[in-house]
Amino acid sequence: MHVNALETPVVVVDLDRMEANIERLQRYLDAHHIANRPHIKTHKVSEIARKQVAAGAVGITCQKVSEAEVMADAGIEDLFIPYNILGEAKLRRLMQLAARVPVQVTADSAYAIKGYAGAAQQAELTLPVLVEFDTGMHRCGVPSPAEAAALARLIARSAGLAFNGLMTFPHNAASDAFVREVRGLLAAEDISIPHVSYGGTPGMWKAHTRTEVTEYRAGTYVYGDRSILKSGALKLEQIALHVITTVVSRPTVERAILDGGSKTFSSDLGGLEGHGMILEYPEARFYGMSEEHGHVDVGACPRRPEIGERVTVIPNHVCPVSNLFDQVVGARNGKVEVVWPVAARGTVQ
Amino acid sequence: MHVNALETPVVVVDLDRMEANIERLQRYLDAHHIANRPHIKTHKVSEIARKQVAAGAVGITCQKVSEAEVMADAGIEDLFIPYNILGEAKLRRLMQLAARVPVQVTADSAYAIKGYAGAAQQAELTLPVLVEFDTGMHRCGVPSPAEAAALARLIARSAGLAFNGLMTFPHNAASDAFVREVRGLLAAEDISIPHVSYGGTPGMWKAHTRTEVTEYRAGTYVYGDRSILKSGALKLEQIALHVITTVVSRPTVERAILDGGSKTFSSDLGGLEGHGMILEYPEARFYGMSEEHGHVDVGACPRRPEIGERVTVIPNHVCPVSNLFDQVVGARNGKVEVVWPVAARGTVQ
Repeated sequence: MHVNALETPVVVVDLDRMEANIERLQRYLDAHHIANRPHIKTHKVSEIARKQVAAGAVGITCQKVSEAEVMADAGIEDLFIPYNILGEAKLRRLMQLAARVPVQVTADSAYAIKGYAGAAQQAELTLPVLVEFDTGMHRCGVPSPAEAAALARLIARSAGLAFNGLMTFPHNAASDAFVREVRGLLAAEDISIPHVSYGGTPGMWKAHTRTEVTEYRAGTYVYGDRSILKSGALKLEQIALHVITTVVSRPTVERAILDGGSKTFSSDLGGLEGHGMILEYPEARFYGMSEEHGHVDVGACPRRPEIGERVTVIPNHVCPVSNLFDQVVGARNGKVEVVWPVAARGTVQ
Repeated sequence: MHVNALETPVVVVDLDRMEANIERLQRYLDAHHIANRPHIKTHKVSEIARKQVAAGAVGITCQKVSEAEVMADAGIEDLFIPYNILGEAKLRRLMQLAARVPVQVTADSAYAIKGYAGAAQQAELTLPVLVEFDTGMHRCGVPSPAEAAALARLIARSAGLAFNGLMTFPHNAASDAFVREVRGLLAAEDISIPHVSYGGTPGMWKAHTRTEVTEYRAGTYVYGDRSILKSGALKLEQIALHVITTVVSRPTVERAILDGGSKTFSSDLGGLEGHGMILEYPEARFYGMSEEHGHVDVGACPRRPEIGERVTVIPNHVCPVSNLFDQVVGARNGKVEVVWPVAARGTVQ
């Protein structure tokens, strides 16, 4: 079946492009001796995670215990969760997972570390923990090397835990300086930093310019989107995910309404103007959305789309789009090859 | 089980409040002899749709054929889809649905009407069609009474179709004037306007001030959200849906990070500042989101939340939140009574 026969709105993955994206980053990181641990939150598809591992990834990154459970069920055997996992119920699930496959987790507080230690001791397992630090995102992560060193010490002396290194997102020159300072602080105590994990698709081709990174987490690189285009990390002909929509209304000369809105594209702007790039109508301005309507100004288009016409959209931010669909269609040269369930979506807790 | 024992992030519906919301609007519309046809896109839960019908709704509104299919499977027997349904595959599904239960649809173009007529004739059914008109939203809908009258005529003379009236969203004084003008234009041809359907939760208590409305569609009223609070249509103690989250990080004195971000709350701002109202910390400013992190400034709070603490959030816009979760928990006085699948989510096409 050709993708043009699929009902809209539909998410179509160009398999050739996606496989090339997976290979390209793997080759680059291999060349620079940086381990690749792609973040599957972008696609949440077991089969794509398997392709990433088959291409050479050391394992994968999952944002939630529930995502990691799905990926373990799919046979992925080395999982990193860069998140503070708190609370009895989640810690119990984490340890059940850790009993099946190697799992590393993250902490930026003594509270999180104490939770991990208690759960690991009860499960009679050793849980590797990285310390999250912050050199720019201002989200999670300790802001000072002294605090990072203190948490590293706490992990190192906690029964049931192993200090496994440092992680941050995104990375910059200050990240390297931060790691070096923590290393200095820990040297006297003979605590080494086994791994340093940086992440982010926009900065992926700069990973080799960082002196401290040992492992890299990129998510969006597998598909790409409009914000990644803007960052320059991928080119238009490398974008592997498109949303095909249909023009359902043309109430005025300038206005076209698509059958995809915020329940298709999400409302993530990603710092961009408009909600997506329409390939067939580069002059069109995707200026607004309702839940099931895309509002497009086609006034500047030399030819304007007609009712019933299909148009192809590159979303601003692709990760929440995958998360809205229960399945994605994989195609080559426009021909449907596979339909994958987005197995790890809806795994909210 | 108490809701405080549920893993977070979790969507909890206060059943007493929800049932009161359903009853209140039903009583109001009954008192004003306006038929109630609630929009289920807000909740997408079969059991809630059944409660709405049991309370007195004449039927329900669904935004997509796929939503309507789920609701028909759940035993709801009178469905309205206020959307242009185009394309062979969707029209085939629409007619299969119309063969099972009464379904009304919408058109704002001759293109859509021709599609309906062809499908209805092939299926040997009569499909009721309303004409969508626009007096303010600037989304779908014909902008002039003359165009509305022309489409009404086209429907009336199309084999397989029945002209069933006019619909718009939202409503205002111009909507009534528009309807009257269309009625005048159609009078000479003996075409009457059987139904006039208006919609919207913010304007629901003004429905009785409109002279032309015969049927009302509200969706968000069942749960409420921060944007509905701002509109004044519901009060804080009537909001029936909350998202319980956990504070997973406190990297600085001012910053708290919640385990819910854009994949929990969506990025819909709804014209508001910030991403939600935190009940326990009214001074907190929910200023940013990543996919799985909520970024909150607690600097102005007299007492600040600790890591591991649970906080209760009213989202800006509740409809996309339901659409992100596979299930919602129904509770009374904090005690879990039921877990409902969000059956009509993920029905993208």
